[in-house]
Amino acid sequence: MAELYHEEPNEADDSIYDEDGGVRADFLEEVKAAIEANDGPRVTVLAGALHEADLGALIVALEPEERLRLVRLMGTHFDFAALTEIDDNIRDEILEGLPAREVAEGVRDLENDDAVTLLEDLEPEEQAEILDALSPVDRAQLQRSLDYPDHSAGRLMQTTFVTAPPYWTAGQAIDVMRDTDEADLPDSFYEVFIVDPGHRLLGTVFLDTLLRSKSRALLEDIMSADRRRVEVTEDREEVARLFQRYNLVSAPVVDEGDRLVGVITIDDVVDVIQEEADANLKALGGVSESEELSDTVFWTAKSRFVWLLVNLLTAFIASSVLGLFEGSLQKMVALAVLAPIVASQGGNAATQTMTVAVRALATRELSRANAARIILREVLVGAVNGVGFGILTGVIAGYWFGSPSLGVVIALAMVTNLVAGALGGILIPQILAKFHIDPAVASGAFVTTVTDVVGFTAFLGFATVWFRLG
Amino acid sequence: MAELYHEEPNEADDSIYDEDGGVRADFLEEVKAAIEANDGPRVTVLAGALHEADLGALIVALEPEERLRLVRLMGTHFDFAALTEIDDNIRDEILEGLPAREVAEGVRDLENDDAVTLLEDLEPEEQAEILDALSPVDRAQLQRSLDYPDHSAGRLMQTTFVTAPPYWTAGQAIDVMRDTDEADLPDSFYEVFIVDPGHRLLGTVFLDTLLRSKSRALLEDIMSADRRRVEVTEDREEVARLFQRYNLVSAPVVDEGDRLVGVITIDDVVDVIQEEADANLKALGGVSESEELSDTVFWTAKSRFVWLLVNLLTAFIASSVLGLFEGSLQKMVALAVLAPIVASQGGNAATQTMTVAVRALATRELSRANAARIILREVLVGAVNGVGFGILTGVIAGYWFGSPSLGVVIALAMVTNLVAGALGGILIPQILAKFHIDPAVASGAFVTTVTDVVGFTAFLGFATVWFRLG
Repeated sequence: MAELYHEEPNEADDSIYDEDGGVRADFLEEVKAAIEANDGPRVTVLAGALHEADLGALIVALEPEERLRLVRLMGTHFDFAALTEIDDNIRDEILEGLPAREVAEGVRDLENDDAVTLLEDLEPEEQAEILDALSPVDRAQLQRSLDYPDHSAGRLMQTTFVTAPPYWTAGQAIDVMRDTDEADLPDSFYEVFIVDPGHRLLGTVFLDTLLRSKSRALLEDIMSADRRRVEVTEDREEVARLFQRYNLVSAPVVDEGDRLVGVITIDDVVDVIQEEADANLKALGGVSESEELSDTVFWTAKSRFVWLLVNLLTAFIASSVLGLFEGSLQKMVALAVLAPIVASQGGNAATQTMTVAVRALATRELSRANAARIILREVLVGAVNGVGFGILTGVIAGYWFGSPSLGVVIALAMVTNLVAGALGGILIPQILAKFHIDPAVASGAFVTTVTDVVGFTAFLGFATVWFRLG
Repeated sequence: MAELYHEEPNEADDSIYDEDGGVRADFLEEVKAAIEANDGPRVTVLAGALHEADLGALIVALEPEERLRLVRLMGTHFDFAALTEIDDNIRDEILEGLPAREVAEGVRDLENDDAVTLLEDLEPEEQAEILDALSPVDRAQLQRSLDYPDHSAGRLMQTTFVTAPPYWTAGQAIDVMRDTDEADLPDSFYEVFIVDPGHRLLGTVFLDTLLRSKSRALLEDIMSADRRRVEVTEDREEVARLFQRYNLVSAPVVDEGDRLVGVITIDDVVDVIQEEADANLKALGGVSESEELSDTVFWTAKSRFVWLLVNLLTAFIASSVLGLFEGSLQKMVALAVLAPIVASQGGNAATQTMTVAVRALATRELSRANAARIILREVLVGAVNGVGFGILTGVIAGYWFGSPSLGVVIALAMVTNLVAGALGGILIPQILAKFHIDPAVASGAFVTTVTDVVGFTAFLGFATVWFRLG
């Protein structure tokens, strides 16, 4: 949920962080000591006034076994919102360690979207237990949100919002809000939704518009009717794209009947944007999207094994190419020494192109409209750098083994491989995307296979012909 | 600037985009035709009502030579805010093609932060010309923002905001806003800043707080005094981290005297977050942060050459290791065939670790507090997968060349290289960061050098000893 300052007593200045952004060692020690001493009041004095984000950072910095104890020691003073700021493993670890009743207590004070974040990854029975401990109303509301598909707008949205009928005046709306019980208002909001008796969304009035308008102005006259809305089942990536493209701060969420069911605010979307960016980064590095620093060794090794297995396969394919030229390698060992250079240079150039392609596909900058232009550009870039590095490598290799013709051979192979790499790097991600396979995850293996195979074949092939090694 | 809906007449539904997010071909053709026919009114009918973001997308989709013509044809109907939505090259291309007076006209209607975005990358003389064409007031204000360092909060902030003295009541504040001339209010705002006569920031009142409060409540009683503020010279990355950590929607910007000089809104920060994420992604792929799809072939080739040159160097270092074992390779060509497998498997495992490390450093998840724990974890992961792939590769290689001992040798080399890779992957980024070198940019080259050298040395070394090839 978005920040309301009067909620947090701690001064902005006395930060709990050191210069490189970690939790201050001395502060951490104090907290650890208090936990060690089972001194609940002391822990509460230290951590009770922290902003939820800072409390989250503190929890992460603690040793696994200390985390649960901190929560227990703080009791009702612990702000469960802090658990929305830390990674899934640590969160679930803590929640599973707490009695359902206590979790329910904590969840009760949270906004709906934060409560969902807490509960969505828990084991079904775990989740059910907590839901049972809630009041029927809270349970029903939370259950409804949890029923929406994973990664859908319904999981992101907040279900408390402010509505008004179109025939009210700006002044009336303000008066009503003043008299509304705090508990019935969201912790923070930016717009008033104008709905008809069937709760269908007619438009929206931003708070600043409300404040600029004359008190007797009718809401239907100052509302924006063409308000962009989000379908409750829409994927969160689409939601993020909408927010980014149109610089939204909040957006109404409607069901298939165009009835208003919730509101998504930018702070939740920012997390999505960050997660999607991380997912791309990890995928390109061959790491699973869900891997966290808090994962166990076994789990991490297992999740990375798959990707390495694919790469081992491609490595064997590349080596089998070398195997085909065993004779040539035997006759001219220099080829064995130089072959990896051709392959690796091609692989790196292809990775550059692939990175650009994957990113452009993710941001929708690369589409049918400009695909041809971009493909041509990449191939030409590959050719230009191919010639450049062909000459450079040729000269060095020629000198090294005192054989100008060997230089010529490797130069030709280099040009061939960088052009092939460019083609692979720009085409493979697009082809995968066409087949709805995430290009960030799958491109790498294919691309390096191309450059290894082409690199080895070109270099050893040209050499075999040129030096009549066949 | 954040979105106000009543500003854009076009329905959300009739989108200009096709399913894969590109600009609809038929719409694009219509626009191209109108440009071709020099039909200004027609172009204006087609593009005049578009949201700035959509107009930007349209411009990007056009051929380079059509872009400037579109802007000229639309004349005063062209919304210069669209230029803040497109990449620098295209923007500067267009701005340099327009007479300074026309640009000044367009800039005049923009919010300060958008105007800065337009002008900051232009050639100094270009920029001066445009500034001269502005009114003294606009010029002074814009010049002040441009004087702040690149990537500083000062460049991001908006300089129109709403302030009130602490002794006003909520009702008074609302009345004053109602009577304020629209031109003196920001296009959209979320909080009222409470300042003293010296314009020093005392606190802030969010609009929703203002609306919940009794009309006679004093602002100083409902304001949040401990409001997080941004130093005008602070780096935008720091600003983004602050917004993300505390889920801010807007934040006041103050000068060294704690005087309020501007406000930064989340929509500008979202762009920063996206750019920083992209920068990391590109850096890991060996692509320069500033590379755009619209760069020329030559420029792109040039910017990628440097990175490839570094990789060529590392490739030669690796090959020179192979050179040391020429004798062994001669005697046993199978070694030449299998060596790349050991190197590439190590390289991929190391890249996984490096990716995790680089990301964790960027998000501050990896700090002194947990470094030891993470390093140990990575080494163990490397060992576990090393043993796994050692056995797998050993068996396959042993069968392939009908030599069990060759299998044992490659297995040992594999374990060695995956552990070395894990160490390199986790340590190198942290070491680079210590020396304030961007780990995302520089880690890759070092890490692969480690795995190539260790991989070749271990495999050929063990083999030379085992088979007495020395």
